[in-house]
Amino acid sequence: MRPHLSISRRTRRTPFSSRVEAAGASGYTVYNHTLLATSFRGIEVDYWHLCENVQVWDVSCEKQVTLMGPGANQLAQYMTPRDLTDTKVGRCYYLPMCDEKGKMMNDAVAIKVNDRHWRLSVADSDVLLWAKGLAVGFGLDVEVREPDIFPLAVQGPKAEELMCRVFGDEIKQLGFFAIAPFIYNGQRMKVARSGMSKQTGYEVFVNDANIGTQLWDELFAKGQDLDVRAGCPNLIERIESGLLSFGSDMDHETSPFEIGLEKYVNLDANIDSLSLPALRAYTPSKKLIGLVLEYHRSLNDLDVFVGNKKVGVISSQAYSPKYMRRLAFFMCDLEALNGATEVEVNTAQGRATGTLASLPFNFEALGLTACR
Amino acid sequence: MRPHLSISRRTRRTPFSSRVEAAGASGYTVYNHTLLATSFRGIEVDYWHLCENVQVWDVSCEKQVTLMGPGANQLAQYMTPRDLTDTKVGRCYYLPMCDEKGKMMNDAVAIKVNDRHWRLSVADSDVLLWAKGLAVGFGLDVEVREPDIFPLAVQGPKAEELMCRVFGDEIKQLGFFAIAPFIYNGQRMKVARSGMSKQTGYEVFVNDANIGTQLWDELFAKGQDLDVRAGCPNLIERIESGLLSFGSDMDHETSPFEIGLEKYVNLDANIDSLSLPALRAYTPSKKLIGLVLEYHRSLNDLDVFVGNKKVGVISSQAYSPKYMRRLAFFMCDLEALNGATEVEVNTAQGRATGTLASLPFNFEALGLTACR
Repeated sequence: MRPHLSISRRTRRTPFSSRVEAAGASGYTVYNHTLLATSFRGIEVDYWHLCENVQVWDVSCEKQVTLMGPGANQLAQYMTPRDLTDTKVGRCYYLPMCDEKGKMMNDAVAIKVNDRHWRLSVADSDVLLWAKGLAVGFGLDVEVREPDIFPLAVQGPKAEELMCRVFGDEIKQLGFFAIAPFIYNGQRMKVARSGMSKQTGYEVFVNDANIGTQLWDELFAKGQDLDVRAGCPNLIERIESGLLSFGSDMDHETSPFEIGLEKYVNLDANIDSLSLPALRAYTPSKKLIGLVLEYHRSLNDLDVFVGNKKVGVISSQAYSPKYMRRLAFFMCDLEALNGATEVEVNTAQGRATGTLASLPFNFEALGLTACR
Repeated sequence: MRPHLSISRRTRRTPFSSRVEAAGASGYTVYNHTLLATSFRGIEVDYWHLCENVQVWDVSCEKQVTLMGPGANQLAQYMTPRDLTDTKVGRCYYLPMCDEKGKMMNDAVAIKVNDRHWRLSVADSDVLLWAKGLAVGFGLDVEVREPDIFPLAVQGPKAEELMCRVFGDEIKQLGFFAIAPFIYNGQRMKVARSGMSKQTGYEVFVNDANIGTQLWDELFAKGQDLDVRAGCPNLIERIESGLLSFGSDMDHETSPFEIGLEKYVNLDANIDSLSLPALRAYTPSKKLIGLVLEYHRSLNDLDVFVGNKKVGVISSQAYSPKYMRRLAFFMCDLEALNGATEVEVNTAQGRATGTLASLPFNFEALGLTACR
């Protein structure tokens, strides 16, 4: 039996919650103290629809933490080992956010609004408190806030078409991870080409709850012939795309080197980042690795073995109907793995062999082709 | 229809989750990124059982944040406006935790383990990140961690009897909000006389997951004749007792003065507390007030009126079967209230009048007697 979720004021509703309910959300989680749907018609039906059409997602749970003031750049740089020196206004940047020990506090998408204003779209931890603590402690001249902004994502291959119908053709000029202001119903809102899927996608940073529900309704009215549906970040699509989830695939004990984020760590940069000294001295002994299992195998538990030696634990997994394989991420003890390329897991039908894969999955290299 | 909760690694399970499931938890929430049951046989049946018997609660979600090192006292004092100067080792202290603007970051129960070691039992926000940010920013010599400790609460009028059977009669010497080490199965664990109810109660700070499940099982084996049951913090009992919930009755915009915590704010103390300067200058214009409604009225929405003027919004509410009234807390705009002692709410049967009450409720003064 699937458990019921008790909703209270503490599990915050959003301006779109009534629309999400009316659209038939069948499962929820709580993310940044806020309701987030996890499925509508079932994650497999939702998945195919997302891959082939367009969906509107209430991702208000992607809380926006703003750093404003003369100290904003300094605070942003303290919090990440990624070099922000040459960052540009109007761009999004994926940031590992690390503490002074080089461990992950969050992974955020940061928007440089101007030279004194950064905005962080944060994963599931209270970055507000971390940023405020640092600002107060270091005595920085920066205001740290969580304003009432409610991101609404439009995702899927027909997202561009739908967004053009509502916001105009200028939306086509928005490159990947670019962000620009658009006017909707007289209200200026930022729109970014981004989102928690590898499909084409946009995020509208709704800053007025009433206009937000009008926007939701207009997206549905204008997208009827595109079969627009309410959706949500989809587990299957996330795993196939190799997108990590803070809290599942990493936590406050994880180094960015262990989860493939080295390209966002500028070890040689001459910057004031809290985590760089620790990261420079760190040699990871674990790594998040992909795992491909025959499709008919469902797992009894999440342990991964080489022979009788446990080498890791699966952190996220889903059955991919497109490749007809079960795909997983697991945190692997590299010494225990000792160069093995195959591992074993416990399934309902006994031990099964799995193939290791680098992340993100390269299906062609794995010899897998999409079934549709 | 009640929504389903999707469980992932991010919504952390606890050492007791299998026991909670086996006991038939019928609803859950997510609290500090961790599963917390909200009901078993229904909150009213659970309520009467809690008031008359004994329950075992998995409250692992009460995360433990430890401050250890020479700077522990200084950091603890920074975070609260309550004067910690004369605090004693082996005692629990209820602490409003406030930022430099005098707003609530959390409300925690703090345990003074020794002069270089505080432990915070935190409500639903990442105090770990706030405390770490301050420690790093101020350059304090203190280690901030969230160790693997899983609080297990034993609550209800028969809790003392059950605890004596398992831990021995010395448990009777534990005064309210005292904490002491006890040995269970060779493992030293701390036990406090505390808990999220106004019934007699204890919290065992389980520091070994395997021994924790043995302890769970032994509490049930030795408590059979006491009708011991699995339980959880109970909404009805919480409201009747006037216990506040962070995230529902207060948030990061709330002052401790607005929620009746002035007795924990030592405005005249000569201490280094971040929030005291702001709190000294603050005059609240809102206050959390109790509301008593005739029992047959269920609410259409959460707005509270005087005539046509909205004076506040209900933050928590439940029907009390003991007093046959609906009880609520609401954040009241004092100027709009303008001294009125009765307010109105919208119910399924139209406007209804409610009586204001100070918190915690004084049922005798309200002319209400328990029906059983």
